[in-house]
Amino acid sequence: MIIDKNKIKTITINKPLKLESGQTLDNFVIAYETFGTLNKNKDNAILAFHALSGDQFATGTNPITGKDGWWVTAIGANKAVDTNKYFVICANVLGGCMGTTGPTEINPNTKEIYGTDFPLVTIKDMVNAQVLLLDHLGIEKTYSVIGGSMGGMQVLQFCSLFKNRTYSAIPIACTASHSAQNIAFNELARQAIMADPEWDSGNYLKSKRNPRNGLSIARMAGHISYLSEEGLQAKFGRRLQEKGALKFSFDADFQVESYLKYQGNAFVDRFDANSYLYLTRAMDYFDLYRENNGVLSNAFKNSKTKFCLISFSTDWLYTTAESKKILIALNSIGADVSFVEIITNNGHDSFLLDEPEFLKSVKGFLDSNYENFKKN
Amino acid sequence: MIIDKNKIKTITINKPLKLESGQTLDNFVIAYETFGTLNKNKDNAILAFHALSGDQFATGTNPITGKDGWWVTAIGANKAVDTNKYFVICANVLGGCMGTTGPTEINPNTKEIYGTDFPLVTIKDMVNAQVLLLDHLGIEKTYSVIGGSMGGMQVLQFCSLFKNRTYSAIPIACTASHSAQNIAFNELARQAIMADPEWDSGNYLKSKRNPRNGLSIARMAGHISYLSEEGLQAKFGRRLQEKGALKFSFDADFQVESYLKYQGNAFVDRFDANSYLYLTRAMDYFDLYRENNGVLSNAFKNSKTKFCLISFSTDWLYTTAESKKILIALNSIGADVSFVEIITNNGHDSFLLDEPEFLKSVKGFLDSNYENFKKN
Repeated sequence: MIIDKNKIKTITINKPLKLESGQTLDNFVIAYETFGTLNKNKDNAILAFHALSGDQFATGTNPITGKDGWWVTAIGANKAVDTNKYFVICANVLGGCMGTTGPTEINPNTKEIYGTDFPLVTIKDMVNAQVLLLDHLGIEKTYSVIGGSMGGMQVLQFCSLFKNRTYSAIPIACTASHSAQNIAFNELARQAIMADPEWDSGNYLKSKRNPRNGLSIARMAGHISYLSEEGLQAKFGRRLQEKGALKFSFDADFQVESYLKYQGNAFVDRFDANSYLYLTRAMDYFDLYRENNGVLSNAFKNSKTKFCLISFSTDWLYTTAESKKILIALNSIGADVSFVEIITNNGHDSFLLDEPEFLKSVKGFLDSNYENFKKN
Repeated sequence: MIIDKNKIKTITINKPLKLESGQTLDNFVIAYETFGTLNKNKDNAILAFHALSGDQFATGTNPITGKDGWWVTAIGANKAVDTNKYFVICANVLGGCMGTTGPTEINPNTKEIYGTDFPLVTIKDMVNAQVLLLDHLGIEKTYSVIGGSMGGMQVLQFCSLFKNRTYSAIPIACTASHSAQNIAFNELARQAIMADPEWDSGNYLKSKRNPRNGLSIARMAGHISYLSEEGLQAKFGRRLQEKGALKFSFDADFQVESYLKYQGNAFVDRFDANSYLYLTRAMDYFDLYRENNGVLSNAFKNSKTKFCLISFSTDWLYTTAESKKILIALNSIGADVSFVEIITNNGHDSFLLDEPEFLKSVKGFLDSNYENFKKN
């Protein structure tokens, strides 16, 4: 993947960032994008956090891939996150591969590509980096922070760390702590990448190689977990790729096989394998329980943030049960929280899709609370 | 994997077997094992079908691996399938890698190892081969046929094809048709194997290579699907491999990671990668609906077989809902069928474990009906 850096907006942070691992990034770059206009009072900002495979190009056209932004369903003029009203900021996460400092970038100390010399980063590190971006933009308090999946984890982490920097928060299809099954899927993905000889112990960019097969298999595993059994059955069932009979070979017979292979191959063109290792690891390490001595509600103690928690009925990666644990924790400290479970067949992927009830919930929550925020 | 053929009991079938693909196996070998004693009337035989990773060594000690047989929990003296009473037969399936003709064996026509020149086989082909073994043993009618997972598919296929060759049948944790999600998991596994350069287009045995990494990743994917989310959480949760802190590396931090890697690596020592391709393909092709023009009940029309269907509450690979579809089909043609859903945390793996209620159900069904069978 070659990125035209001219198409990417960045800031360089020239103060050291202390990472959770104990290591320090002396200076680093945040690549980001904004949508809509920041008003005079700087009180219409919404920080959107992206998920594992996302980037800063949340809506409009992604200038690198030429395709729609990953959250074009939700963000835009008159959409759920209305860019006529709000100023939406989205930054590539630390460890990502769309311009923010990560394994694909040059280590300023060695002038070499980081590769796996890049230090492990956590969800907390990602959030800390993005708060520096808010500082840079002069935004003291966002109206809201929003994100699904890994983006939702960043929402929770942000609210836990910065209790006065957002008025509201929308954590979607996420968890306060990666489960054993979540870790298992990610480990499968990492093993697939690292088993590919082209991975070259993480040095493939220096040696001009690319673990395409490994990353593609990792992505296939991801896609299986993003879709529900019901959704897969409805979308593909046992329909054959070619009309007529089975091929009696190992080529793709079934449409679901072609779909997965296509998704795997397409991903390799726009994502970096080491970045996939780093981001999945960050998700596995995420554990707001551990951070709070086992008591999740402590993460949100004294929070004045207004929460809208959203889950999807057939999401088996981050189940409704996980959202309910967050709901219970928030309720137990008297937080202002509403909760919606959207009934859908589309599994975890729902947050990226045109799910009317979901988008209506987001829009309703944002638009109905905005005047209250401005009055404060 | 090197198999000492002296430790394996085989028969050679010298008549051609017409496969579903249209190809023919001119002559082939069935490796099998028996447990208990066939009585004079030859009416105490139970045919046990193995699952994807199994073989003919269902109980006792597997002489090749030195470990317990895969169904030692269920088969043995005084156990659920009581070898004091019954004569249990278990054969390695066609396409397997424990002595039955499959990709690891020599093609009698070319004198070379088959590899991926072996024709694709189906569940129906496997069952047809095993019926020839029954013929060889002089067993006209078994008292029962039993199996879980791919073994359960063979039970269903056997009952559909041979309506007078078994008195009873116990299909466990299976489906009448592989779902899109089932196919997706298997395709992920196959892609992992075929992406390994050591696979060598299927010729690794000839070239003295071995796609260890690919097969190991395939097995990891399998294990994720065999365990339930609840079971994984109870067994591993987020417990760390080493006491104390996270390592901030890509080594195994969590016990669930080590478990999966261990399972993957251990499997490679006892299983063949091409065989894994063939057997997963056979499962994907299994579709009793298609075979019966979309009407599952037609598969069992005029069946006098007494069925005991068993599913496990947390099995998300072959769900209780799938078993209920079979139950409905059997009921709709007035078949003699009972159904048990075992409540357990152990997911699909339950059928291999010491699950008391499950084993009691099997034992009760077998022992209470045996006298009726003998009276007939």
